[in-house]
Amino acid sequence: MTESVEDEHRRVAGLRAPDLLSEARRLDAADPLAHHLAAFADAPGVVAYLDGNSLGRPLRDLPEKMSAFIRDDWGTRLIRSWDEQWMDLPMTVGDRIADVALGAGPGQTLVADSTSVILYKLMRAAVAARPGRDEIVIEAGNFPTDRFIAAGIAQETGATLRWVEPDAVTGVSVADIAAAVSDRTSLVVLSHVDYRSGALADMPAITRAVHAAGALMLWDLCHSTGVVPMRLDEWGVDMAVGCTYKYLNGGPGSPAFAYLRAEHHGVVDQPIQGWFGAADIFAMGPEYAPAPGIRRLLSGTPPVLAMLAMQGMLDLIAAEGITAVRAKSISLTDFAVRAYDEVLAPLGVRLLSPREASKRGGHITIGHDSFQEVTKTLWADGVIPDFRFPDGIRLGLSPLSTSHEETLRGILAVRDALA
Amino acid sequence: MTESVEDEHRRVAGLRAPDLLSEARRLDAADPLAHHLAAFADAPGVVAYLDGNSLGRPLRDLPEKMSAFIRDDWGTRLIRSWDEQWMDLPMTVGDRIADVALGAGPGQTLVADSTSVILYKLMRAAVAARPGRDEIVIEAGNFPTDRFIAAGIAQETGATLRWVEPDAVTGVSVADIAAAVSDRTSLVVLSHVDYRSGALADMPAITRAVHAAGALMLWDLCHSTGVVPMRLDEWGVDMAVGCTYKYLNGGPGSPAFAYLRAEHHGVVDQPIQGWFGAADIFAMGPEYAPAPGIRRLLSGTPPVLAMLAMQGMLDLIAAEGITAVRAKSISLTDFAVRAYDEVLAPLGVRLLSPREASKRGGHITIGHDSFQEVTKTLWADGVIPDFRFPDGIRLGLSPLSTSHEETLRGILAVRDALA
Repeated sequence: MTESVEDEHRRVAGLRAPDLLSEARRLDAADPLAHHLAAFADAPGVVAYLDGNSLGRPLRDLPEKMSAFIRDDWGTRLIRSWDEQWMDLPMTVGDRIADVALGAGPGQTLVADSTSVILYKLMRAAVAARPGRDEIVIEAGNFPTDRFIAAGIAQETGATLRWVEPDAVTGVSVADIAAAVSDRTSLVVLSHVDYRSGALADMPAITRAVHAAGALMLWDLCHSTGVVPMRLDEWGVDMAVGCTYKYLNGGPGSPAFAYLRAEHHGVVDQPIQGWFGAADIFAMGPEYAPAPGIRRLLSGTPPVLAMLAMQGMLDLIAAEGITAVRAKSISLTDFAVRAYDEVLAPLGVRLLSPREASKRGGHITIGHDSFQEVTKTLWADGVIPDFRFPDGIRLGLSPLSTSHEETLRGILAVRDALA
Repeated sequence: MTESVEDEHRRVAGLRAPDLLSEARRLDAADPLAHHLAAFADAPGVVAYLDGNSLGRPLRDLPEKMSAFIRDDWGTRLIRSWDEQWMDLPMTVGDRIADVALGAGPGQTLVADSTSVILYKLMRAAVAARPGRDEIVIEAGNFPTDRFIAAGIAQETGATLRWVEPDAVTGVSVADIAAAVSDRTSLVVLSHVDYRSGALADMPAITRAVHAAGALMLWDLCHSTGVVPMRLDEWGVDMAVGCTYKYLNGGPGSPAFAYLRAEHHGVVDQPIQGWFGAADIFAMGPEYAPAPGIRRLLSGTPPVLAMLAMQGMLDLIAAEGITAVRAKSISLTDFAVRAYDEVLAPLGVRLLSPREASKRGGHITIGHDSFQEVTKTLWADGVIPDFRFPDGIRLGLSPLSTSHEETLRGILAVRDALA
């Protein structure tokens, strides 16, 4: 980028980049969580990592923990570790997620499978639990796997999908849902934070509206777990599913988690009745009898090794508390919006996320026709946001691993790449 | 154990323990694969690990490979690694398993989910592919998760389970299956190697008998993959599922693999239609359109980190070839049976596996009323077989990580613990 083009941008923008840099540094200096930045592994050549909402970074001590796990728990205790510590791991890590991130009491959450498989199990269970109701309400802009899984279940159970089409930026509202549910609704499936816009749904009010119609509520927490506080128990949520490789830094393809409210245990049945969901796993008996509690959601052998990385991140979040993490998240996204206003809006970039911090999650999305090309340039230069077809760049600002200055570097790089 | 009791055992047994030890050492000295024993991580305090059929040991270089993966592939390339190397990983590792262990050509195998979830997907697909046929044939002694999943599918599809009850030691025969299948049979589900007895089913002949009835054949390869050669393509197998944490040493809870014969691609549909099975994963389009090839069996985000460990073991097996691995396996189980005859049979221990090597897989099972207690003693002493309710001890002799002398140490420890 030539000097003259940069000067032109500075003239157009109200606040010059050097002023934004001062502001970023001031915010970083005042950030009570800034000391955690050093807890993440070095990433040589990475100028700005702005995709923590898609794949969280590994913690610095993970290689050592993994080596100890391989040497001791797996390599030396060997099969004995199943008896000694692994059988209950899906539930103990699930309880930890519930406590740290979900506002849920113990015995209602476990780690297993992938988000897609958990969605299948819970949706099937929900449809079966509301016989005589033949509609599943789902948002047209929900994450594809949610829609695809729901479509498959509708096909196999004879249900109809009722599509809600909310505003693309502000996301789904209570009014949208209240207008869609009826005594035909078995289940409503929504994302807490929209994977594109970052719009944050009003979980307690929407859940109430769904219950008023006698339907069950399943929240997809993939884009909110570990960054937005919630109170699943208090808000009456029936079911939830979430991801552990985003803000919980579980590593690529780490397993999902499922929440099933205690009052549904023993009532709601899931279809993939594998041995780890049986009341007595090693009885090897002739008939499947489901475990009485949350464990009935399990099917196969739990992914023990793949549950290791997330535990370190859960400890970090727990040490600060999710409220403090959310405060940092808001500071980062507020600053990103401000920097966008200053340096990107003048270039014709659109803001595709809510302006009000209370209405969005941990990422913001910006749009421009050339962003597919821009993303290639950025990635090659070590500036790593996420591109989402057709024209969106998501800036996923994982609070514990991202600074305001890093955020600014990313936004200035977008500006430069556009030039 | 007192000298006099030991002398008594030696008197009863035809071959004395010292002679067995000489024989074990002779076999180890002549073992062309013995040099691989050093490729596995040290296990301090472990006298004999005889449970490689349940949880394979980690390779010595795994901590280093895992650290490099965390540092580079995950920690530095970050989200870029999805584009650069991870999107196709389930298929590339699947192809590697197919080539090394299954006798199957590329494009028909992938790594995903757990064995239970894959069983669900494939069984549902098979039942749907044979409309008008309402029976699933399954063995009464099949592994519980196979039976439980089948029972759930029978319940939801209105099918009936037709139980085959073969001899507990010799396992399922062609005659058993030929007598059970009919024009009502949609699917036959059997284990290649029985998880208890180790009995090896006649895969080509049974598959032919199933096809003669117009049904589909699904083999559970959990206890044979990586230890018993097979030729899925040549033998006309329709579907298969297997485990990677046993003889493929993928680590606790590593994902399963699925094989689906090429001719069924585009015809057979599985029910959990998540985004990774879609033709265009990132189109995020409104409708689910399945990928044309094997990838349509995927549902959620692939478990990348959990696919790392198995790749090293696949390299080791590939270097020697599965035929050489099988030869070592037979040498180990033959020797175990001989040692059993000499030192355990006189104590009233029963052999619950076929005597003929060609009729069994990589483990043998022995039975005694006191084995639940005996196993506790053995585990505390660092001798680690697997106990299976009600009275079986499995000796799982993973060929590349187990010596004849180690096998003997385990059997002598069983003898001592019985005393």
